[in-house]
Amino acid sequence: MTVDTRYAVNVSPKPGILDPQGRAVEGSLDHLGIAGVSAVRVGRRIELTVSAADDAAARAVVERLAAELLANPLIEAYQIEVLGAVSSIESDSASGAPG
Amino acid sequence: MTVDTRYAVNVSPKPGILDPQGRAVEGSLDHLGIAGVSAVRVGRRIELTVSAADDAAARAVVERLAAELLANPLIEAYQIEVLGAVSSIESDSASGAPG
Repeated sequence: MTVDTRYAVNVSPKPGILDPQGRAVEGSLDHLGIAGVSAVRVGRRIELTVSAADDAAARAVVERLAAELLANPLIEAYQIEVLGAVSSIESDSASGAPG
Repeated sequence: MTVDTRYAVNVSPKPGILDPQGRAVEGSLDHLGIAGVSAVRVGRRIELTVSAADDAAARAVVERLAAELLANPLIEAYQIEVLGAVSSIESDSASGAPG
């Protein structure tokens, strides 16, 4: 028996680290006529399904993946979100679509 | 009086749209000796602070920004998350740091 769980890993530039994409978004606001937006930070969001024996094992896999592959610990921070059991939310149709 | 609210916009490739970054992550799992991970999708996460007269006005600004600037509606879907009032969670220190 394994549990399939969908997770999201949110990776963002650490405070104080330069964020050129965030500055680019802020620079576009005038052109769009949008006011009142500030402190824009652009990061990545990775969603994935983990099959493991239990929740603790699944969480350990996501932690390792985030720390070793998805984020650069020198300049980025990450935060893990549980999206739910895959049976109830259904994994992305790109993989695992039924027959 | 204005309300300052921190939002996140999660942008992800639509189902069925090719996601080369997701495939690259999946291709690296073997090297790391990680098993049981599937359906990896890589998107962006943009966090921002909005100052507006009320919650509805702030939400409208974020919706417009997401649809017109942050996501490409042809190939990407977005979802808006309210992170909270800025007074309580404090905006990113990159802008608005005290003294």
